[in-house]
Amino acid sequence: MNIRLYNALILTMKDDNIIKGEIWVCGERIIYVGDGTDTDKVYRSLKLSSILWDREIDCCGNLLMPGFKDAHTHSGMTLLRSYADDLPLDDWLNKQVFPVEAKLDGEMIYHLTKLAILEYLTGGITAIFDMYLTPETIAQACIDMGMRCVQVGAVNNFSQSVDMVEEMFKKLNNSHNLISYILGFHAEYTCSKELLQEIAGLSRKYKAPVYAHISETAKEVEECKKRYGMTPPVFLDSLGMFTFGGGGYHCVHMEEADIDLFQRKRLNVVTNPASNMKLASGIAPISQYLKREINVAIGTDGPASNNCLDMFKEMFLVTALAKIRENDASAVDAWEALKMATVNGSRAMYLPDTDVLEAGKLADIIMIDLQKPNMQPVNNIPKNIVYSAGSQNVKMTMINGRILYENGRFADFIDEQAIYSKANEIKESIC
Amino acid sequence: MNIRLYNALILTMKDDNIIKGEIWVCGERIIYVGDGTDTDKVYRSLKLSSILWDREIDCCGNLLMPGFKDAHTHSGMTLLRSYADDLPLDDWLNKQVFPVEAKLDGEMIYHLTKLAILEYLTGGITAIFDMYLTPETIAQACIDMGMRCVQVGAVNNFSQSVDMVEEMFKKLNNSHNLISYILGFHAEYTCSKELLQEIAGLSRKYKAPVYAHISETAKEVEECKKRYGMTPPVFLDSLGMFTFGGGGYHCVHMEEADIDLFQRKRLNVVTNPASNMKLASGIAPISQYLKREINVAIGTDGPASNNCLDMFKEMFLVTALAKIRENDASAVDAWEALKMATVNGSRAMYLPDTDVLEAGKLADIIMIDLQKPNMQPVNNIPKNIVYSAGSQNVKMTMINGRILYENGRFADFIDEQAIYSKANEIKESIC
Repeated sequence: MNIRLYNALILTMKDDNIIKGEIWVCGERIIYVGDGTDTDKVYRSLKLSSILWDREIDCCGNLLMPGFKDAHTHSGMTLLRSYADDLPLDDWLNKQVFPVEAKLDGEMIYHLTKLAILEYLTGGITAIFDMYLTPETIAQACIDMGMRCVQVGAVNNFSQSVDMVEEMFKKLNNSHNLISYILGFHAEYTCSKELLQEIAGLSRKYKAPVYAHISETAKEVEECKKRYGMTPPVFLDSLGMFTFGGGGYHCVHMEEADIDLFQRKRLNVVTNPASNMKLASGIAPISQYLKREINVAIGTDGPASNNCLDMFKEMFLVTALAKIRENDASAVDAWEALKMATVNGSRAMYLPDTDVLEAGKLADIIMIDLQKPNMQPVNNIPKNIVYSAGSQNVKMTMINGRILYENGRFADFIDEQAIYSKANEIKESIC
Repeated sequence: MNIRLYNALILTMKDDNIIKGEIWVCGERIIYVGDGTDTDKVYRSLKLSSILWDREIDCCGNLLMPGFKDAHTHSGMTLLRSYADDLPLDDWLNKQVFPVEAKLDGEMIYHLTKLAILEYLTGGITAIFDMYLTPETIAQACIDMGMRCVQVGAVNNFSQSVDMVEEMFKKLNNSHNLISYILGFHAEYTCSKELLQEIAGLSRKYKAPVYAHISETAKEVEECKKRYGMTPPVFLDSLGMFTFGGGGYHCVHMEEADIDLFQRKRLNVVTNPASNMKLASGIAPISQYLKREINVAIGTDGPASNNCLDMFKEMFLVTALAKIRENDASAVDAWEALKMATVNGSRAMYLPDTDVLEAGKLADIIMIDLQKPNMQPVNNIPKNIVYSAGSQNVKMTMINGRILYENGRFADFIDEQAIYSKANEIKESIC
């Protein structure tokens, strides 16, 4: 499809300038971003005198920007949205979440992932970094819905295996242009030392980065120190886990040495503020990460612990919690949060072609509706997005050059009512 | 207008039961809520054998509930949305907010209030507790838009006067069925002792409650203690301010004696979590208020310090911040937050007829769209509302029996584009 988006404001995220102009999409890539006065170079490079547009969309002065990257989620947990809340963490996990999860199979996770994807699309999320139980059916759900998805290994003592992680790493990378796979494990506290050593071995074998839940709770850090005399990051590094990059989800309770390590090894932090609040895990030291120039991305975590998949909420929380934590209203400003939700997410997910809007990049583009009361008057668009916008402002979500959600409706090939029905059926059968 | 809303789920907020049924609205009031099997009693009481419906609305299984009460706002500050953020509090207030506010007149505030009302309607807010500069033009904006509004005196050493507060108290109460007015002043730190004594005198004269910003920041409390040897609540009470009820906005930094006082005098706390985060004011001790059975309502505060007027965001923050503050994932559950945003708000605003859905109450009703991905599957609707819903789920907003917003559109008499234009014009002229 050749799509021309014109009469737009454009926030490329290369910097905080907002330009008036248009974006041309050809197939899965952007071929032009600009004010429309220099399009002759596009024709020359294509060796064409004109382009036959499949669609020309008048953006009516609304904003085009890169889609949000949800850099940590468990999509299949939509099943458990509002199933068990307001409980102490251990009861929540052991008495509510684990028993239901034990009954899930790959087909159920396929359907539950599709439900999550509907929500990503309504919220302008164009790529997810997903950790869950059945990588192949998750990949299939994403392919069938047109969602970009980086999966990560979830192996632990109780589910998946190192062999499976290696198999998925080989099978899912290069299998489809929407799908990739990164080595990973659930967390230090759910994995034996031997298992962790094997994952580190895979990392060396493939010279590949590794991700896991790291230092999410104070208890996790304490117990790791009792077990190994080291914090989780330092212990994992001692096994050679981080030679080829990667990083941690959550990273709420990080000591100075941990932060040093993340800086030195250029590891990524993926922060999950709503989940960290709801489970009373704490407030991550984002200001300190930024001072060390650590790449910080943002994730929603799964719908069991959030309960929505909404990057607007997370962006607000990143900056607002930093202000509370530092007792400083100027801590971590809106622009930093917006970068985390877009360009930093691309970097953390090893998706360099999705970070900004420019010719040659993948067409993962969203349109933000500025003609809503919460976006008026127009004093500062980036601050409006972080402090005031929500899913009601997402007018269009395009992934890989394909418009999947527009003006409140999903693309024709998506049957959202069937997906809701299926999710409720699964709930009735196992909850 | 006679309006029948059928095929609905109904959360009356009298308790947490959800019933299947219908609601009948006649003029400004609800005349029936039930499963539809006992409507003969309505006909008997009306001495009618049938009702001629102006509209019969199929709710398609979506949820009807009381509208949200935004129990502390400064609507006219829409002008300053995203105008100055990420600044230390003093710089924000003194260098950015005050200089612009000094240029505002009543007509500008009329238009800026209308812009805020658009946002209230999209977010299911059916009543506001508004403190701002020009009560008569604010009342006019609310009447012209169909918004229910309780105003509160904002007098301080620099603007308004005690005489004006008394005049507005007499003039605006009983002037229009959407409008009321409560005695109030800005805050202890912006008022002389003499001024505060005069307000306390008005309270005695009219046996009327009084509201103000109270103990919002640690600095405010410290300075009051230096000035008078007492915390703000104790000092104000010593002047006889709280003999007839009322309460405080914010109440972030409250000492044991302050909480005792609020409990003993049955004063209301209006909490404003997003604003308290964004301005780095702190986290209010909501769990302690609830333990003492203090009535806690929720406000958005003004758009300069939030920056949106979104009770979904505030409900999430009330419970999520309590969890962080108490280090307990079970602190202040979703149901408590939902009560604060509805019934407790009605009580704090002295609007007893707006609290729940039952025959005889005012028809301030919203419809929540459950057919969106963020509300599926349906494990628990109240928890879905607090933890997952947003303005995208508000399908209808009815105030005083009148539908003002429905399926993404405002009522025909509202010209939102003209309101946006006016707000941007004002911005261009004075910012």
